[in-house]
Amino acid sequence: MPYAAISLSEKFAKFSEHWSPKNIAQMNDYHFKLVKIQGDFVWHSHAETDEVFIVVEGEMTIQLRDGEVVLRSGEMFVVPKGVEHRPSARRECKIMLVELAGTINTGQVQSELTAKDGVWV
Amino acid sequence: MPYAAISLSEKFAKFSEHWSPKNIAQMNDYHFKLVKIQGDFVWHSHAETDEVFIVVEGEMTIQLRDGEVVLRSGEMFVVPKGVEHRPSARRECKIMLVELAGTINTGQVQSELTAKDGVWV
Repeated sequence: MPYAAISLSEKFAKFSEHWSPKNIAQMNDYHFKLVKIQGDFVWHSHAETDEVFIVVEGEMTIQLRDGEVVLRSGEMFVVPKGVEHRPSARRECKIMLVELAGTINTGQVQSELTAKDGVWV
Repeated sequence: MPYAAISLSEKFAKFSEHWSPKNIAQMNDYHFKLVKIQGDFVWHSHAETDEVFIVVEGEMTIQLRDGEVVLRSGEMFVVPKGVEHRPSARRECKIMLVELAGTINTGQVQSELTAKDGVWV
């Protein structure tokens, strides 16, 4: 039976829009998602899950209400559940997210940046 | 409040032994672990969780009873819960695992390669 590796670069090559997470893998009831980001996102939080950010290429900032963290390629950060945060990137940045399946990108906030959940690439 | 990125390369620099996973982050009840591997591991499975392999540097093979998958830097694979597998690498390979906290590296098998769980780096 043939098994296939999931290549992050091949998956990133399949879409170009920003702030629109695409599922690439499932582990139990969690999804691994790729996202390209640029500019400022909206302040939001996720009541039901911690959220992992892993930078694959580029640089991003995660603002928190009492500080911020800068992430570069090969660096990661866990935003605890319920904690307000605001991702941003000056130039396009490619990231992987890990979070509970069904998590909406803008959390409790309805925004023009709210993306459809459950899209695979 | 200062927040710190978790750097995979800085964490990898802190240990050298093979087949001994080190926790670097927690997301809900899941752990992100770094491991350096070389040679052949033991056949085993994890009854309670899927297991995610992400290759950070190098190349590895995951044998399954009915096939195998080769993973290179920037590639990942999900071993479903209960599925027997055997990781191996000819040369040292650096990988990140994601799995339920408390998962033992050799699963249901007791081996000289069984590592202590819950070690952070």
